[in-house]
Amino acid sequence: MPPRQKAPMLHEDRFFDPDPTVRRHARSLYQETRDLPIVSPHGHVDPALLALDQPFPDPARLLVVPDHYVLRMLYSQGVPLEALGIPPRDGGAFERDPRRIWRAFAERWFLFRGTPTGAWLDHELYLVLGVTRKLDPSTADQVYDEIAEKLRSPEFRPRALFRRFGIEVLATTDAATDTLEHHRALAATGWGGRMIPTFRPDALFAIAAPGWAEELSRLAAVFQEPIRDLAAFLGALEGRRAWFRRHGATATDHGVEVPLTHRLEAREADALFRRGLAGEADAADQRRFEAHMLMEMARMSAGDGMVMQLHAGALRDHNRELLRRFGPNLGGDIPVATEYTRNLQELLNAYGNDSRFRLVLFTLDESTYSRELAPLAGHYPALRLGPAWWFHDSLEGMRRMRERTVETAGIRNLAGFNDDTRAFCSIPARHDLARRVDANWLAGLVARHVIGVDDAREMARALAYDLARETYRLDGVAADAREGVQR
Amino acid sequence: MPPRQKAPMLHEDRFFDPDPTVRRHARSLYQETRDLPIVSPHGHVDPALLALDQPFPDPARLLVVPDHYVLRMLYSQGVPLEALGIPPRDGGAFERDPRRIWRAFAERWFLFRGTPTGAWLDHELYLVLGVTRKLDPSTADQVYDEIAEKLRSPEFRPRALFRRFGIEVLATTDAATDTLEHHRALAATGWGGRMIPTFRPDALFAIAAPGWAEELSRLAAVFQEPIRDLAAFLGALEGRRAWFRRHGATATDHGVEVPLTHRLEAREADALFRRGLAGEADAADQRRFEAHMLMEMARMSAGDGMVMQLHAGALRDHNRELLRRFGPNLGGDIPVATEYTRNLQELLNAYGNDSRFRLVLFTLDESTYSRELAPLAGHYPALRLGPAWWFHDSLEGMRRMRERTVETAGIRNLAGFNDDTRAFCSIPARHDLARRVDANWLAGLVARHVIGVDDAREMARALAYDLARETYRLDGVAADAREGVQR
Amino acid sequence: MPPRQKAPMLHEDRFFDPDPTVRRHARSLYQETRDLPIVSPHGHVDPALLALDQPFPDPARLLVVPDHYVLRMLYSQGVPLEALGIPPRDGGAFERDPRRIWRAFAERWFLFRGTPTGAWLDHELYLVLGVTRKLDPSTADQVYDEIAEKLRSPEFRPRALFRRFGIEVLATTDAATDTLEHHRALAATGWGGRMIPTFRPDALFAIAAPGWAEELSRLAAVFQEPIRDLAAFLGALEGRRAWFRRHGATATDHGVEVPLTHRLEAREADALFRRGLAGEADAADQRRFEAHMLMEMARMSAGDGMVMQLHAGALRDHNRELLRRFGPNLGGDIPVATEYTRNLQELLNAYGNDSRFRLVLFTLDESTYSRELAPLAGHYPALRLGPAWWFHDSLEGMRRMRERTVETAGIRNLAGFNDDTRAFCSIPARHDLARRVDANWLAGLVARHVIGVDDAREMARALAYDLARETYRLDGVAADAREGVQR
Repeated sequence: MPPRQKAPMLHEDRFFDPDPTVRRHARSLYQETRDLPIVSPHGHVDPALLALDQPFPDPARLLVVPDHYVLRMLYSQGVPLEALGIPPRDGGAFERDPRRIWRAFAERWFLFRGTPTGAWLDHELYLVLGVTRKLDPSTADQVYDEIAEKLRSPEFRPRALFRRFGIEVLATTDAATDTLEHHRALAATGWGGRMIPTFRPDALFAIAAPGWAEELSRLAAVFQEPIRDLAAFLGALEGRRAWFRRHGATATDHGVEVPLTHRLEAREADALFRRGLAGEADAADQRRFEAHMLMEMARMSAGDGMVMQLHAGALRDHNRELLRRFGPNLGGDIPVATEYTRNLQELLNAYGNDSRFRLVLFTLDESTYSRELAPLAGHYPALRLGPAWWFHDSLEGMRRMRERTVETAGIRNLAGFNDDTRAFCSIPARHDLARRVDANWLAGLVARHVIGVDDAREMARALAYDLARETYRLDGVAADAREGVQR
Repeated sequence: MPPRQKAPMLHEDRFFDPDPTVRRHARSLYQETRDLPIVSPHGHVDPALLALDQPFPDPARLLVVPDHYVLRMLYSQGVPLEALGIPPRDGGAFERDPRRIWRAFAERWFLFRGTPTGAWLDHELYLVLGVTRKLDPSTADQVYDEIAEKLRSPEFRPRALFRRFGIEVLATTDAATDTLEHHRALAATGWGGRMIPTFRPDALFAIAAPGWAEELSRLAAVFQEPIRDLAAFLGALEGRRAWFRRHGATATDHGVEVPLTHRLEAREADALFRRGLAGEADAADQRRFEAHMLMEMARMSAGDGMVMQLHAGALRDHNRELLRRFGPNLGGDIPVATEYTRNLQELLNAYGNDSRFRLVLFTLDESTYSRELAPLAGHYPALRLGPAWWFHDSLEGMRRMRERTVETAGIRNLAGFNDDTRAFCSIPARHDLARRVDANWLAGLVARHVIGVDDAREMARALAYDLARETYRLDGVAADAREGVQR
Repeated sequence: MPPRQKAPMLHEDRFFDPDPTVRRHARSLYQETRDLPIVSPHGHVDPALLALDQPFPDPARLLVVPDHYVLRMLYSQGVPLEALGIPPRDGGAFERDPRRIWRAFAERWFLFRGTPTGAWLDHELYLVLGVTRKLDPSTADQVYDEIAEKLRSPEFRPRALFRRFGIEVLATTDAATDTLEHHRALAATGWGGRMIPTFRPDALFAIAAPGWAEELSRLAAVFQEPIRDLAAFLGALEGRRAWFRRHGATATDHGVEVPLTHRLEAREADALFRRGLAGEADAADQRRFEAHMLMEMARMSAGDGMVMQLHAGALRDHNRELLRRFGPNLGGDIPVATEYTRNLQELLNAYGNDSRFRLVLFTLDESTYSRELAPLAGHYPALRLGPAWWFHDSLEGMRRMRERTVETAGIRNLAGFNDDTRAFCSIPARHDLARRVDANWLAGLVARHVIGVDDAREMARALAYDLARETYRLDGVAADAREGVQR
């Protein structure tokens, strides 16, 4: 974590309850976790960032343009994406002047009051970047200049920040067909840090999607064998998993709208695959194929020990018009109600009793925390609950997650924190917020005499550090998976 | 708001958290909003009330008989509706003595402990009506007499109360076929207040309902043209919208069980309309027609700038037996789980990126706040979230709404408060409760150093006043819609 | 309640908010309810326990082996059920040494931090059993010995504990075909306590289940008449209900996955029954039959005054592998999203307006509290809401239940507390926790000036005692049902 943890704009006790008993305990618990190394086992930082170690371009392209949380709020209040530096796909005009983008953002800084984006950006501005003026429309230019100057200095290059942030391990998320060139290049530098890939094969399971054939060719190319049937496809996936593991991966990641799991007869699965090859698969075919492939991924994970992550319930590109005009990942994904109990029953019956297997579940549907996820995680040995995700990675969202899951699942069935961010400089901000929220939550339990101070101290450390390391098998896949069997 | 804001029965700090820091901030924030004018952009006050300005009849018919919140609680505890002055449709006996109705209510006053109805009635009794005794079974008659005496005085006539309450604008909800005679009569008096209608065409979209043909005749009559096909129907609706706008309306309102939106082929839509005309439409036809008409209403709103409100998820008249015996609106409506992400996708794709259009969404399904509504409102420029509605318009309900939406959508994507009441005298009570709850919620954010005091002050004012004016385009439909485009 | 209410390991103010105002009120409200008799109108204590009054065998078989909450948490963290003393069905090896089971539990005692199981066990260890050492891995053996010694003394026999716990009435849950031999044997002893059965006919409605024919034979046997058609079946059920009432029962209980209610034509219902007899019924048949039988149960309840309990939404034996290896009730049941508004409409329309009928609803889907259950209970005279159930019978779960139901339904439409436990020694722990949580919740309302201190005192007593007695008609079915009609 950055050495300078104080800034006059940020209250030392921010995010702690005002009750004096709670605050006292919160402060003291936070003292024990604030300086722990950052374990970031799931996120979307571009590996090129650290591999190339170029300076960040400018304040707008550091903090505004790539942040879909920022873009969606500004867009919701009528700011066109073009004005925020997003190029339309049709080649139309867009704002290229970073200072003007920054001003458009600074003028509407008030929109982020009470939001996690506001809290993260505060941390980034005043602690990570050391800005000395409070951001508001009148200081926009001065703050811009302050940041721009910092970005020119070597201490603000990505690898320097990685060290300053105290990152122990950073996992990226990478297509199954990725060559991992940046990971390899970075490793070859002997830089001393640990950046590891995560195996994400979603695009290869979308047999009805327009880009599927191309994606499959890419797989055949990197695997260096033709793929003409399901057996070859599964073989290639196993090969790629091994390749990822060789480059440090300990986990896979899977994003689905509906987390249906269902093993098909080998014949049917192969037929679906061939329909995909023939360009004849439809949406229903794809759903069945994906449900089957989740079973296959679980099977492989039980074998090779890679932790399987499942992010369910996002309806991607709800705003089709925005997708058409600008592309994906600009704030137009919207959650849907999600069912886990029935959808995961087949997978959990097949692999959930096996401690070699580990599944980390994420949800965007908070009603499932107490109804489905905590009861499942508090029973199946293979299951851990991921942290409050995306829209719920916030003060209130994290509190709700704790309050609705721990009474049933305990904290040892949680996966600890992960930041899930694309925004590199938000990593310390997000971990700091999470550590504060957990310190405060545990302080409340101590103040109500639900747990003792010593219990709380251990739990705080587990939530901030131990559980992430342990859940994601960061001390070795094979070792931990073997240990899992014995327990 | 009433000049007398104190009553010995009501604690000055009611509804504020006991923590001294929070309470101090809450008090001070509330001081800034308590005397702001009341903007009531959505509700169900009978326009005849102000147009005729007759004295309220008696305490029972002021506070008990017309209040479905009061009726449902008493009924749930075994009090027959007849005993509460509700006439059975079959002409059977019912209590006509208001004092006996009042006593039946006062004897069970304890049932309302901890309910918003209890809080609103406290405010009405002790602040609006100036009752000097605490209501309980032993004081029922004395309290009755106190109120009855007040109601005879001119200061307790509706228009006098309207002024005393500090109402800046009061919107009623009116059938699309309404002649707006009371609005016109009231305007003609030059009374100096602002009461505006809201265009509610639901009954005209229910092509399978028994009363539809009649409703359509009524439309043809007020529009003064025959309606024989869908084109004529749409023309009549546009005509009525213009008529409503001429009489001050800035909004439309739509109540649906399922908020499905889907544009049909013109041919299919017209065919459905004709099946309705032929008396052949069934429930499935009606659902498709309603989904299409929501698209048409959005299209018209994008054109004429009227704010479109959507109240979804109430299963009306769940208690069929009660409906048969007494009629609707007596407490027998029950919410159902409601889906917005998929159901609204077509409408939002067509109009949601257009700031000329504005949609205000309401829900009775709190699980959608953080899962669907806040993500939608924090993205689509056209969308605003209405306040916690109906069963959720309460201390805890409003708190949950803030905690689950603002982190994702911010407060600028909220519509501010509206009271949605049929009970005229509860208007100041409901706004006061909402202002107190928001002051307390913001005070909590200040006390946890999430926002600063100045931020909180601006947010409190926005939630109590500015957002309602701005959302409902009360300063002019055209102006605001144009402004929307530019932003 | 036990005379010794203090233990150095348990803070006197546990589970109360730290805010001094809230805590002061909470203490004082709790003082008024802590020593009230325990009314336990729904639970799963084995009637043989009190009938035979044998000493509890050992600490492991008292506190670990029979508690599915304990088993599921340990199992989720990789402890095989065999190691916890659960015999595999295939006759495989399992741990028979209670001390070794106890150690396996004590070593993982930290898993229960912040869980209700942890709170209940604390109460049982330090207050019920008077253990003088804090349980942890290092004291496991000593604590074992302390408990084992206690269990040998006559004061720790079930009936002695029943008296010490201050149990006024304890309801068990019994198959409709049960001969109630233990209830009769116990009554014959003139022991002075009150243990009553509850009529649970679920197994008789499962016409597609493998064991149904056998269950039906059992019914015919105890009813002493052949059952060849639906009419005979209904007659036998009525006979059994009367038999249960003669032995003290005041309630029935029904567990369903989906709470669908629907009356079939007599002919169809009879045909389904006959398909069951012929061994030809399938799952769809069973669903329709169960929906019909819920209507029949309501009809009978409206006639004989037995309170109908409905526990909906548990998917039983989600973990089929565990069921196959060890049997049911070991922690493998998982909740599913549950719909009440539409599913119960037919039953509530038929019987919900009739105060002779009483239905107590339970849910595992907290999203239904404010959306469906509170609106239903705040309207239908026949309906009461059961307490926060199973996974939600916890500090946070009970708080959420109050916060989401009382504003709409008031407390008089709640059923008070019931412990629903199989673990006899957890009865005082569970009631104490509930009383503390309610005292604290009410204290919060007082501190925020939502209710007065006197109101809170009455409400605390109602929630702890009165509502359970009244809801379950423990002062006499007929009397109360008659009274219901008059109200």
